[in-house]
Amino acid sequence: MNQVPPRTIVSRRSRPAKSPLSREAIVEAALAILEQQGEGGLSMRNIAKRLDTGAASLYVYFANTDELHAALLDHVFSEVVLPAQQGNWRDRLKDLLISYHGVLEARRGLAQLALSSIASGPNSLRIWECILRLLSEGGVGATTAAWGVDLLVLYVTSIAAEQALHTTDDRGLTRVASVLSAVTADEFPHLHRLRGDMISDDGPNRSQWAIDVIIDGLSARSPPA
Amino acid sequence: MNQVPPRTIVSRRSRPAKSPLSREAIVEAALAILEQQGEGGLSMRNIAKRLDTGAASLYVYFANTDELHAALLDHVFSEVVLPAQQGNWRDRLKDLLISYHGVLEARRGLAQLALSSIASGPNSLRIWECILRLLSEGGVGATTAAWGVDLLVLYVTSIAAEQALHTTDDRGLTRVASVLSAVTADEFPHLHRLRGDMISDDGPNRSQWAIDVIIDGLSARSPPA
Repeated sequence: MNQVPPRTIVSRRSRPAKSPLSREAIVEAALAILEQQGEGGLSMRNIAKRLDTGAASLYVYFANTDELHAALLDHVFSEVVLPAQQGNWRDRLKDLLISYHGVLEARRGLAQLALSSIASGPNSLRIWECILRLLSEGGVGATTAAWGVDLLVLYVTSIAAEQALHTTDDRGLTRVASVLSAVTADEFPHLHRLRGDMISDDGPNRSQWAIDVIIDGLSARSPPA
Repeated sequence: MNQVPPRTIVSRRSRPAKSPLSREAIVEAALAILEQQGEGGLSMRNIAKRLDTGAASLYVYFANTDELHAALLDHVFSEVVLPAQQGNWRDRLKDLLISYHGVLEARRGLAQLALSSIASGPNSLRIWECILRLLSEGGVGATTAAWGVDLLVLYVTSIAAEQALHTTDDRGLTRVASVLSAVTADEFPHLHRLRGDMISDDGPNRSQWAIDVIIDGLSARSPPA
Protein backbone atom coordinates (compact mmCIF):
# COMPACT_ATOMS: atom_id res chain seq x y z
CA MET A 1 0.00 0.00 0.00
CA ASN A 2 1.46 3.26 -1.12
CA GLN A 3 1.89 5.79 1.53
CA VAL A 4 0.27 9.12 0.78
CA PRO A 5 3.10 11.63 0.58
CA PRO A 6 2.89 14.29 3.22
CA ARG A 7 1.01 17.23 1.77
CA THR A 8 2.58 20.63 2.05
CA ILE A 9 -0.16 22.88 3.21
CA VAL A 10 0.19 26.47 2.03
CA SER A 11 -2.06 28.74 3.96
CA ARG A 12 -3.87 31.32 1.81
CA ARG A 13 -2.81 33.72 4.53
CA SER A 14 0.82 33.52 3.49
CA ARG A 15 0.09 35.13 0.07
CA PRO A 16 0.97 38.80 -0.04
CA ALA A 17 -2.13 40.53 1.25
CA LYS A 18 -4.02 42.78 -1.13
CA SER A 19 -4.86 46.06 0.55
CA PRO A 20 -8.60 46.20 1.04
CA LEU A 21 -10.46 48.34 -1.49
CA SER A 22 -11.91 51.62 -0.28
CA ARG A 23 -12.82 54.98 -1.81
CA GLU A 24 -9.61 56.33 -0.34
CA ALA A 25 -7.43 53.57 -1.86
CA ILE A 26 -9.06 54.06 -5.27
CA VAL A 27 -8.56 57.84 -5.15
CA GLU A 28 -4.91 57.38 -4.14
CA ALA A 29 -4.34 54.97 -7.05
CA ALA A 30 -6.05 57.36 -9.48
CA LEU A 31 -3.90 60.24 -8.24
CA ALA A 32 -0.70 58.24 -8.75
CA ILE A 33 -1.80 57.40 -12.31
CA LEU A 34 -2.70 61.02 -13.02
CA GLU A 35 0.78 62.15 -12.01
CA GLN A 36 2.47 59.44 -14.08
CA GLN A 37 0.31 59.32 -17.20
CA GLY A 38 -1.81 62.46 -17.19
CA GLU A 39 -5.58 62.59 -17.51
CA GLY A 40 -5.62 60.06 -20.36
CA GLY A 41 -4.64 57.28 -17.96
CA LEU A 42 -7.62 57.77 -15.66
CA SER A 43 -9.84 54.96 -16.96
CA MET A 44 -11.63 52.71 -14.49
CA ARG A 45 -9.83 49.76 -16.10
CA ASN A 46 -6.40 51.30 -15.64
CA ILE A 47 -7.07 52.25 -12.03
CA ALA A 48 -8.44 48.78 -11.28
CA LYS A 49 -5.33 47.17 -12.79
CA ARG A 50 -3.10 49.17 -10.46
CA LEU A 51 -5.16 47.93 -7.52
CA ASP A 52 -4.92 44.36 -8.80
CA THR A 53 -8.67 44.05 -9.21
CA GLY A 54 -11.30 44.37 -11.93
CA ALA A 55 -13.06 47.54 -13.04
CA ALA A 56 -16.37 46.12 -11.81
CA SER A 57 -15.08 46.27 -8.20
CA LEU A 58 -14.55 50.03 -8.51
CA TYR A 59 -18.17 50.63 -9.49
CA VAL A 60 -19.13 49.51 -6.00
CA TYR A 61 -17.46 52.70 -4.76
CA PHE A 62 -17.99 55.15 -7.66
CA ALA A 63 -20.98 55.14 -10.01
CA ASN A 64 -18.88 56.49 -12.92
CA THR A 65 -15.60 58.21 -13.79
CA ASP A 66 -17.17 61.63 -13.25
CA GLU A 67 -17.77 60.76 -9.59
CA LEU A 68 -14.25 59.41 -9.23
CA HIS A 69 -12.67 62.53 -10.78
CA ALA A 70 -14.74 64.72 -8.46
CA ALA A 71 -13.57 62.72 -5.45
CA LEU A 72 -9.94 62.89 -6.60
CA LEU A 73 -10.15 66.67 -6.91
CA ASP A 74 -11.84 67.03 -3.54
CA HIS A 75 -9.13 64.84 -2.02
CA VAL A 76 -6.28 67.13 -3.15
CA PHE A 77 -8.28 70.21 -2.15
CA SER A 78 -7.68 69.16 1.44
CA GLU A 79 -4.29 70.84 0.90
CA VAL A 80 -5.82 74.26 0.14
CA VAL A 81 -5.04 76.54 3.09
CA LEU A 82 -8.14 78.31 4.38
CA PRO A 83 -7.25 81.76 5.71
CA ALA A 84 -7.40 82.78 9.35
CA GLN A 85 -10.59 84.35 10.70
CA GLN A 86 -8.92 87.72 11.23
CA GLY A 87 -7.61 90.28 8.78
CA ASN A 88 -8.52 92.12 5.62
CA TRP A 89 -11.15 90.13 3.69
CA ARG A 90 -9.58 90.81 0.29
CA ASP A 91 -6.09 89.72 1.33
CA ARG A 92 -7.52 86.57 2.89
CA LEU A 93 -9.52 85.80 -0.27
CA LYS A 94 -6.42 86.29 -2.41
CA ASP A 95 -4.39 84.04 -0.09
CA LEU A 96 -7.00 81.32 -0.43
CA LEU A 97 -7.03 81.56 -4.23
CA ILE A 98 -3.23 81.58 -4.41
CA SER A 99 -3.15 78.45 -2.27
CA TYR A 100 -5.81 76.84 -4.51
CA HIS A 101 -3.70 77.68 -7.56
CA GLY A 102 -0.60 76.23 -5.89
CA VAL A 103 -2.37 72.93 -5.21
CA LEU A 104 -3.50 72.64 -8.85
CA GLU A 105 -0.03 73.52 -10.08
CA ALA A 106 1.80 71.08 -7.83
CA ARG A 107 0.65 67.92 -9.62
CA ARG A 108 0.72 67.06 -13.28
CA GLY A 109 -2.67 66.81 -14.97
CA LEU A 110 -4.57 68.26 -12.03
CA ALA A 111 -5.39 71.68 -13.49
CA GLN A 112 -6.74 70.15 -16.67
CA LEU A 113 -8.79 67.68 -14.66
CA ALA A 114 -10.17 70.59 -12.63
CA LEU A 115 -11.19 72.26 -15.89
CA SER A 116 -13.07 69.17 -17.04
CA SER A 117 -14.68 68.09 -13.75
CA ILE A 118 -16.52 69.82 -10.95
CA ALA A 119 -15.22 68.73 -7.56
CA SER A 120 -17.77 68.11 -4.88
CA GLY A 121 -17.04 66.89 -1.40
CA PRO A 122 -16.28 68.20 2.07
CA ASN A 123 -13.13 70.11 1.04
CA SER A 124 -14.78 71.81 -1.94
CA LEU A 125 -17.74 72.78 0.24
CA ARG A 126 -15.42 74.32 2.84
CA ILE A 127 -13.61 76.32 0.14
CA TRP A 128 -16.83 77.59 -1.45
CA GLU A 129 -18.27 78.50 1.96
CA CYS A 130 -15.09 80.40 2.80
CA ILE A 131 -15.12 82.38 -0.48
CA LEU A 132 -18.79 83.24 0.05
CA ARG A 133 -18.09 84.36 3.62
CA LEU A 134 -15.16 86.57 2.58
CA LEU A 135 -17.10 88.15 -0.30
CA SER A 136 -19.96 88.78 2.10
CA GLU A 137 -17.55 90.41 4.58
CA GLY A 138 -16.43 92.61 1.67
CA GLY A 139 -20.00 93.74 1.06
CA VAL A 140 -20.48 91.83 -2.20
CA GLY A 141 -24.16 91.00 -2.74
CA ALA A 142 -25.24 87.42 -2.07
CA THR A 143 -26.25 86.46 -5.63
CA THR A 144 -23.19 88.17 -7.08
CA ALA A 145 -21.04 86.22 -4.63
CA ALA A 146 -22.70 82.93 -5.57
CA TRP A 147 -21.72 83.35 -9.22
CA GLY A 148 -18.46 85.00 -8.21
CA VAL A 149 -17.19 81.79 -6.60
CA ASP A 150 -17.33 80.06 -9.96
CA LEU A 151 -15.67 82.97 -11.79
CA LEU A 152 -12.79 83.24 -9.30
CA VAL A 153 -12.22 79.48 -9.18
CA LEU A 154 -12.38 79.21 -12.99
CA TYR A 155 -9.83 82.00 -13.38
CA VAL A 156 -7.37 80.36 -11.00
CA THR A 157 -7.93 76.95 -12.62
CA SER A 158 -7.41 78.30 -16.11
CA ILE A 159 -4.12 80.04 -15.35
CA ALA A 160 -2.91 76.80 -13.75
CA ALA A 161 -4.02 74.85 -16.86
CA GLU A 162 -2.45 77.43 -19.15
CA GLN A 163 0.85 77.21 -17.26
CA ALA A 164 0.73 73.40 -17.30
CA LEU A 165 0.07 73.26 -21.05
CA HIS A 166 2.54 75.91 -22.17
CA THR A 167 5.94 74.80 -23.25
CA THR A 168 8.41 75.64 -20.54
CA ASP A 169 10.85 77.43 -22.78
CA ASP A 170 8.79 80.61 -23.23
CA ARG A 171 9.03 80.30 -27.01
CA GLY A 172 5.48 81.59 -27.32
CA LEU A 173 6.11 84.79 -25.38
CA THR A 174 9.32 85.47 -27.28
CA ARG A 175 7.46 85.03 -30.56
CA VAL A 176 4.64 87.36 -29.48
CA ALA A 177 7.17 89.94 -28.30
CA SER A 178 8.84 89.84 -31.68
CA VAL A 179 5.51 90.15 -33.55
CA LEU A 180 4.49 93.07 -31.32
CA SER A 181 7.80 94.86 -31.76
CA ALA A 182 7.16 94.92 -35.52
CA VAL A 183 3.66 96.49 -35.49
CA THR A 184 3.41 99.98 -36.93
CA ALA A 185 1.69 102.95 -35.33
CA ASP A 186 -0.23 103.53 -38.57
CA GLU A 187 -1.88 100.14 -38.69
CA PHE A 188 -2.14 99.33 -34.96
CA PRO A 189 -1.89 102.58 -32.96
CA HIS A 190 -2.99 101.13 -29.58
CA LEU A 191 -0.88 97.99 -29.87
CA HIS A 192 2.10 100.04 -30.98
CA ARG A 193 1.83 102.31 -27.95
CA LEU A 194 1.24 99.44 -25.50
CA ARG A 195 3.41 96.73 -27.07
CA GLY A 196 5.66 96.66 -24.03
CA ASP A 197 2.83 96.51 -21.48
CA MET A 198 1.00 93.74 -23.33
CA ILE A 199 3.58 91.14 -22.32
CA SER A 200 5.20 92.74 -19.27
CA ASP A 201 5.49 90.88 -15.98
CA ASP A 202 3.82 87.63 -17.02
CA GLY A 203 3.67 85.78 -13.72
CA PRO A 204 2.30 85.89 -10.19
CA ASN A 205 1.95 89.69 -10.22
CA ARG A 206 -0.31 89.51 -13.21
CA SER A 207 -2.45 86.72 -11.73
CA GLN A 208 -2.86 88.62 -8.48
CA TRP A 209 -3.71 91.75 -10.42
CA ALA A 210 -6.35 89.78 -12.35
CA ILE A 211 -7.85 88.40 -9.14
CA ASP A 212 -8.07 91.99 -7.87
CA VAL A 213 -9.78 93.06 -11.10
CA ILE A 214 -12.40 90.31 -10.73
CA ILE A 215 -12.96 91.17 -7.06
CA ASP A 216 -13.32 94.86 -8.01
CA GLY A 217 -15.82 93.86 -10.68
CA LEU A 218 -17.82 91.80 -8.20
CA SER A 219 -17.79 94.69 -5.71
CA ALA A 220 -18.96 97.10 -8.42
CA ARG A 221 -21.95 94.84 -9.15
CA SER A 222 -23.25 95.06 -5.61
CA PRO A 223 -26.08 97.41 -4.77
CA PRO A 224 -24.64 100.40 -2.88
CA ALA A 225 -24.94 99.94 0.88
CA MET B 1 20.24 41.78 -83.83
CA ASN B 2 17.50 42.22 -81.29
CA GLN B 3 15.32 45.20 -81.72
CA VAL B 4 15.05 47.40 -78.68
CA PRO B 5 11.43 47.24 -77.57
CA PRO B 6 9.68 50.56 -77.80
CA ARG B 7 9.91 52.23 -74.45
CA THR B 8 6.71 53.52 -72.93
CA ILE B 9 7.52 56.95 -71.74
CA VAL B 10 5.49 58.02 -68.75
CA SER B 11 5.74 61.71 -68.25
CA ARG B 12 6.21 62.68 -64.62
CA ARG B 13 3.51 65.20 -65.37
CA SER B 14 0.85 62.50 -65.72
CA ARG B 15 1.20 61.48 -62.06
CA PRO B 16 -1.53 62.91 -59.88
CA ALA B 17 -0.25 66.32 -58.96
CA LYS B 18 0.66 66.95 -55.34
CA SER B 19 -0.66 70.31 -54.24
CA PRO B 20 2.32 72.57 -53.73
CA LEU B 21 3.34 73.06 -50.10
CA SER B 22 2.64 76.41 -48.53
CA ARG B 23 2.05 77.78 -45.03
CA GLU B 24 -1.65 77.88 -45.90
CA ALA B 25 -1.76 74.24 -47.06
CA ILE B 26 0.07 73.10 -43.92
CA VAL B 27 -2.26 75.06 -41.64
CA GLU B 28 -5.31 73.61 -43.45
CA ALA B 29 -3.97 70.08 -43.03
CA ALA B 30 -3.23 70.70 -39.34
CA LEU B 31 -6.74 72.05 -38.82
CA ALA B 32 -8.30 68.97 -40.42
CA ILE B 33 -6.22 66.72 -38.16
CA LEU B 34 -7.14 68.75 -35.08
CA GLU B 35 -10.84 68.30 -35.81
CA GLN B 36 -10.46 64.57 -36.44
CA GLN B 37 -7.93 63.55 -33.79
CA GLY B 38 -7.74 66.39 -31.30
CA GLU B 39 -4.57 68.16 -30.17
CA GLY B 40 -2.67 64.88 -29.75
CA GLY B 41 -2.59 64.41 -33.53
CA LEU B 42 -0.82 67.68 -34.24
CA SER B 43 2.72 66.36 -34.65
CA MET B 44 4.83 67.58 -37.57
CA ARG B 45 5.14 63.95 -38.71
CA ASN B 46 1.38 63.41 -38.74
CA ILE B 47 0.72 66.65 -40.61
CA ALA B 48 3.47 65.87 -43.13
CA LYS B 49 1.97 62.41 -43.73
CA ARG B 50 -1.38 63.95 -44.59
CA LEU B 51 0.36 66.19 -47.10
CA ASP B 52 2.24 63.23 -48.56
CA THR B 53 5.63 64.67 -47.65
CA GLY B 54 8.22 64.39 -44.91
CA ALA B 55 8.32 66.34 -41.67
CA ALA B 56 11.56 68.02 -42.79
CA SER B 57 9.66 69.81 -45.58
CA LEU B 58 7.39 71.46 -43.02
CA TYR B 59 10.31 72.99 -41.15
CA VAL B 60 10.95 75.13 -44.22
CA TYR B 61 7.70 76.91 -43.38
CA PHE B 62 7.51 76.65 -39.57
CA ALA B 63 10.49 76.61 -37.22
CA ASN B 64 8.67 74.41 -34.68
CA THR B 65 5.22 73.15 -33.61
CA ASP B 66 4.71 76.24 -31.44
CA GLU B 67 4.89 78.44 -34.55
CA LEU B 68 2.55 76.13 -36.44
CA HIS B 69 -0.01 76.09 -33.61
CA ALA B 70 0.12 79.88 -33.43
CA ALA B 71 -0.47 80.13 -37.19
CA LEU B 72 -3.36 77.65 -37.00
CA LEU B 73 -5.04 79.69 -34.26
CA ASP B 74 -4.51 82.93 -36.13
CA HIS B 75 -5.99 81.33 -39.24
CA VAL B 76 -9.30 80.45 -37.53
CA PHE B 77 -9.39 83.85 -35.81
CA SER B 78 -10.11 85.30 -39.26
CA GLU B 79 -13.69 84.20 -38.47
CA VAL B 80 -13.97 86.41 -35.39
CA VAL B 81 -16.38 89.22 -36.22
CA LEU B 82 -14.95 92.63 -35.35
CA PRO B 83 -17.71 95.01 -34.26
CA ALA B 84 -18.89 98.04 -36.22
CA GLN B 85 -17.27 101.39 -35.52
CA GLN B 86 -20.46 102.83 -34.07
CA GLY B 87 -22.37 102.03 -30.90
CA ASN B 88 -21.87 101.48 -27.20
CA TRP B 89 -18.25 100.40 -26.53
CA ARG B 90 -19.21 97.80 -23.93
CA ASP B 91 -21.80 96.10 -26.13
CA ARG B 92 -19.33 96.02 -29.02
CA LEU B 93 -16.61 94.56 -26.80
CA LYS B 94 -19.00 91.88 -25.57
CA ASP B 95 -20.07 91.08 -29.15
CA LEU B 96 -16.42 90.63 -30.13
CA LEU B 97 -15.73 88.32 -27.17
CA ILE B 98 -18.90 86.28 -27.83
CA SER B 99 -17.82 85.87 -31.46
CA TYR B 100 -14.31 84.82 -30.30
CA HIS B 101 -15.87 82.26 -27.97
CA GLY B 102 -18.09 80.97 -30.79
CA VAL B 103 -15.08 80.43 -33.07
CA LEU B 104 -13.23 78.46 -30.36
CA GLU B 105 -16.32 76.41 -29.61
CA ALA B 106 -17.09 75.57 -33.24
CA ARG B 107 -14.17 73.20 -33.76
CA ARG B 108 -13.01 70.29 -31.67
CA GLY B 109 -9.70 70.75 -29.89
CA LEU B 110 -9.45 74.44 -30.67
CA ALA B 111 -10.20 75.84 -27.20
CA GLN B 112 -7.60 73.59 -25.60
CA LEU B 113 -5.06 74.53 -28.24
CA ALA B 114 -5.82 78.19 -27.53
CA LEU B 115 -5.10 77.53 -23.85
CA SER B 116 -1.72 75.97 -24.64
CA SER B 117 -0.52 78.33 -27.40
CA ILE B 118 -0.44 82.06 -27.93
CA ALA B 119 -1.70 82.99 -31.37
CA SER B 120 0.21 85.67 -33.19
CA GLY B 121 -0.53 86.87 -36.68
CA PRO B 122 -2.56 89.51 -38.51
CA ASN B 123 -5.94 88.32 -37.20
CA SER B 124 -4.80 88.17 -33.58
CA LEU B 125 -3.25 91.63 -33.90
CA ARG B 126 -6.53 93.03 -35.29
CA ILE B 127 -8.49 91.49 -32.40
CA TRP B 128 -6.08 92.81 -29.73
CA GLU B 129 -6.06 96.26 -31.33
CA CYS B 130 -9.85 96.30 -31.37
CA ILE B 131 -10.14 95.30 -27.69
CA LEU B 132 -7.61 97.99 -26.75
CA ARG B 133 -9.51 100.59 -28.78
CA LEU B 134 -12.86 99.69 -27.20
CA LEU B 135 -11.43 99.70 -23.66
CA SER B 136 -9.85 103.05 -24.41
CA GLU B 137 -13.21 104.39 -25.66
CA GLY B 138 -14.66 103.17 -22.34
CA GLY B 139 -12.11 105.20 -20.41
CA VAL B 140 -10.05 102.26 -19.17
CA GLY B 141 -6.45 103.27 -18.55
CA ALA B 142 -3.88 102.21 -21.13
CA THR B 143 -1.81 99.86 -18.95
CA THR B 144 -4.93 98.35 -17.41
CA ALA B 145 -6.26 97.75 -20.92
CA ALA B 146 -3.00 96.11 -22.03
CA TRP B 147 -3.28 93.48 -19.29
CA GLY B 148 -7.06 93.44 -19.65
CA VAL B 149 -6.83 92.02 -23.18
CA ASP B 150 -5.15 88.91 -21.82
CA LEU B 151 -7.63 88.53 -18.94
CA LEU B 152 -10.69 88.86 -21.18
CA VAL B 153 -9.30 86.53 -23.83
CA LEU B 154 -8.22 83.96 -21.21
CA TYR B 155 -11.68 84.00 -19.64
CA VAL B 156 -13.42 83.38 -22.96
CA THR B 157 -10.89 80.68 -23.88
CA SER B 158 -11.28 78.91 -20.56
CA ILE B 159 -15.07 78.73 -20.68
CA ALA B 160 -14.79 77.33 -24.21
CA ALA B 161 -12.23 74.76 -22.98
CA GLU B 162 -14.36 73.92 -19.95
CA GLN B 163 -17.40 73.37 -22.16
CA ALA B 164 -15.38 71.24 -24.58
CA LEU B 165 -13.96 69.08 -21.80
CA HIS B 166 -17.12 68.59 -19.77
CA THR B 167 -19.16 65.52 -20.39
CA THR B 168 -22.23 66.47 -22.35
CA ASP B 169 -24.72 64.80 -20.05
CA ASP B 170 -24.52 67.37 -17.24
CA ARG B 171 -23.76 64.64 -14.72
CA GLY B 172 -21.37 66.96 -12.92
CA LEU B 173 -23.92 69.72 -12.39
CA THR B 174 -26.56 67.24 -11.22
CA ARG B 175 -24.08 65.79 -8.73
CA VAL B 176 -23.12 69.23 -7.40
CA ALA B 177 -26.79 70.20 -7.12
CA SER B 178 -27.44 67.09 -5.06
CA VAL B 179 -24.42 67.73 -2.81
CA LEU B 180 -25.49 71.36 -2.31
CA SER B 181 -29.07 70.42 -1.52
CA ALA B 182 -27.78 68.34 1.37
CA VAL B 183 -25.65 71.01 3.12
CA THR B 184 -26.89 72.18 6.49
CA ALA B 185 -27.30 75.78 7.63
CA ASP B 186 -25.30 74.97 10.76
CA GLU B 187 -22.18 73.81 9.01
CA PHE B 188 -22.33 75.91 5.80
CA PRO B 189 -24.59 78.91 6.40
CA HIS B 190 -23.66 80.84 3.22
CA LEU B 191 -23.77 77.81 0.94
CA HIS B 192 -27.07 76.75 2.46
CA ARG B 193 -28.63 80.14 1.79
CA LEU B 194 -27.19 80.40 -1.74
CA ARG B 195 -27.32 76.76 -2.80
CA GLY B 196 -29.82 77.55 -5.56
CA ASP B 197 -27.89 80.56 -6.92
CA MET B 198 -24.58 78.69 -6.98
CA ILE B 199 -25.65 76.57 -9.96
CA SER B 200 -28.45 78.65 -11.48
CA ASP B 201 -28.43 79.61 -15.16
CA ASP B 202 -25.20 77.95 -16.16
CA GLY B 203 -24.84 79.10 -19.74
CA PRO B 204 -24.47 82.16 -21.97
CA ASN B 205 -26.12 84.47 -19.40
CA ARG B 206 -23.48 83.57 -16.85
CA SER B 207 -20.61 84.03 -19.32
CA GLN B 208 -21.90 87.44 -20.36
CA TRP B 209 -22.36 88.37 -16.72
CA ALA B 210 -18.76 87.33 -16.06
CA ILE B 211 -17.47 89.40 -18.99
CA ASP B 212 -19.36 92.37 -17.53
CA VAL B 213 -17.79 91.73 -14.12
CA ILE B 214 -14.29 91.75 -15.63
CA ILE B 215 -15.02 94.91 -17.64
CA ASP B 216 -16.38 96.56 -14.46
CA GLY B 217 -13.23 95.51 -12.65
CA LEU B 218 -11.03 96.98 -15.37
CA SER B 219 -13.03 100.22 -15.31
CA ALA B 220 -12.71 100.41 -11.51
CA ARG B 221 -8.91 100.14 -11.83
CA SER B 222 -8.64 103.23 -14.00
CA PRO B 223 -7.62 106.51 -12.49
CA PRO B 224 -10.71 108.73 -12.27
CA ALA B 225 -10.98 111.06 -15.27
